[in-house]
Amino acid sequence: MSDNPTIVPKIVVVGAGAFGTALAAVAAASANADVTLLSRREEVAAECRLTGRNERALPGIALPAGLAFSADAAALAGAGIVLFAMPSQEHRSAAQTYGAAIGADATIVTCAKGMEQSTGRLLTELLEEELPGHRIGVLSGPGFAADIAKGLPTAMVVAAPDMAVATELAEALSGPTFRLYPSTDRIGVQLGGALKNVLAIACGIVEGAGLGDSARAALISRGLAEMSRFIAARGGEADTVRGLSGLGDLVLTATSHQSRNLRFGIALGQNGRANGRGGELVEGAFAASVAARVAKDLGIEMPVTEAVAAIIDGRLDVRTALEQLMSRPITQE
Amino acid sequence: MSDNPTIVPKIVVVGAGAFGTALAAVAAASANADVTLLSRREEVAAECRLTGRNERALPGIALPAGLAFSADAAALAGAGIVLFAMPSQEHRSAAQTYGAAIGADATIVTCAKGMEQSTGRLLTELLEEELPGHRIGVLSGPGFAADIAKGLPTAMVVAAPDMAVATELAEALSGPTFRLYPSTDRIGVQLGGALKNVLAIACGIVEGAGLGDSARAALISRGLAEMSRFIAARGGEADTVRGLSGLGDLVLTATSHQSRNLRFGIALGQNGRANGRGGELVEGAFAASVAARVAKDLGIEMPVTEAVAAIIDGRLDVRTALEQLMSRPITQE
Repeated sequence: MSDNPTIVPKIVVVGAGAFGTALAAVAAASANADVTLLSRREEVAAECRLTGRNERALPGIALPAGLAFSADAAALAGAGIVLFAMPSQEHRSAAQTYGAAIGADATIVTCAKGMEQSTGRLLTELLEEELPGHRIGVLSGPGFAADIAKGLPTAMVVAAPDMAVATELAEALSGPTFRLYPSTDRIGVQLGGALKNVLAIACGIVEGAGLGDSARAALISRGLAEMSRFIAARGGEADTVRGLSGLGDLVLTATSHQSRNLRFGIALGQNGRANGRGGELVEGAFAASVAARVAKDLGIEMPVTEAVAAIIDGRLDVRTALEQLMSRPITQE
Repeated sequence: MSDNPTIVPKIVVVGAGAFGTALAAVAAASANADVTLLSRREEVAAECRLTGRNERALPGIALPAGLAFSADAAALAGAGIVLFAMPSQEHRSAAQTYGAAIGADATIVTCAKGMEQSTGRLLTELLEEELPGHRIGVLSGPGFAADIAKGLPTAMVVAAPDMAVATELAEALSGPTFRLYPSTDRIGVQLGGALKNVLAIACGIVEGAGLGDSARAALISRGLAEMSRFIAARGGEADTVRGLSGLGDLVLTATSHQSRNLRFGIALGQNGRANGRGGELVEGAFAASVAARVAKDLGIEMPVTEAVAAIIDGRLDVRTALEQLMSRPITQE
């Protein structure tokens, strides 16, 4: 497939936050792709057009000259690939807003890491519901927007219902330092991204409470087992959790202070309990309550996720949660 | 088993470095165990006896009153559990020095993370060769000596040929904040510990070269796949790599600056190439060359390990190594 010169698809990235901007920049920089970054607000598009930067989202980073900016849904016309790069909880309204402008042949790829809180739906399920007939993919894995935009080496995963589509997406969206690996496990790939945010909060709590690096490592190891159980119960492949979109992303989020979820957890650990509604802005806070609820329905054990959800809800304080987790009986690992 | 009051075995920890001292302290602090820390030099034992601390190994940490100190091999008489806590490359000479003093009924547990460089032997294999007829176990996983000694929550794994012995070891050596999980996969457990040091050096190189957290996360994810292949080829269970002794320990070593292997890698990444013989003191530098050699014999691919070995040997510079790793073709993950 890569041996033949193929027609470069038109790519539109919907959502001009840090991650969407970084993905658009990489795609526009590689080869002669036709890429548009579509924002909700005309002033953002205008400023990007004028300055060649998206200063609010990616301060100090020059965007490639070939990247187009728009706030007009009409920019979606003729797009072969549409990336949904807005937060998880805005996916449904974005699908409703932009759906009519998206051509029937377009492949739609969600780049958010979460589930819909009100319904527990995966984002691919939500998009299939709102935009029936489209091929729906998911892009996930360990990549900070700033690293991607600066051209630091980054490897992520793009999953689609079949390998040919996934490979096409990987080739269209990769750049020299940004590598996408194709997968067909959409459920496993997106749940890795959603659930690792919960564990990053847990790791932050452990760090904030001063429990040390060894405790955090044990938690990550435990957490991966939880993720794996959830993914398998939800119909994904348990093995996907070992790859970039599971373990890789978990490690990145749980150990780098660039992560908003980790910082939110650190504050919880320092305060000893949830303090107002600070969780509103972090994906992991939504994902914790959804995952805990769905896990209960599916009948699977997720002690770490349940503890994080209870702490965020104010139903449990950090010390009690940690004591409960530590006092589980010694059995096989 | 834990319901019946059992006879507390006599435990001797051979090797008064940081890790041996921490393990001895935890075992001595829990219940009424009879624990001796055996050092090579009488002055170390005398100082510990006098001050109640092992200041060179674990500065500032008070050791439990019940812990005995000795430099006399005769202290091994009657020991039911003997922990070998000296560096990997000193295991054979320690077995030869102390073997005659160890009773026939003793279970011997290696606590080092490495392989013998000259032979490529696993440490359990080396001990079986030098001390035939003994039950040989292995203790490994994510635990920094200082965290363990300070009573911060830590979870590790102890493996033995059968589950009953592993469970007995886990119960004898665990404390309220130090939890050992039993396993029967001695090969998988010890190779996790040995190989993660190599990957920690690789992560240090990436960090030292300024490549960012996303690149490190991708490397850890790739590295785990390499570890898994090696463990399976060497007769261990590939799944063990997902647990505390694989992933858990890899995450700890690769992301915490307490790790000597990581710091060694950072210096390599900053200098761009190996600089003299600085690798002599880190376990991962030995393990890299052994693992690369054994992988070749076994016919398995370990690109990260091979690159680390070549950089340490001075056969490859960091930039070329990174370019080679990045330019591998995009295939399935």
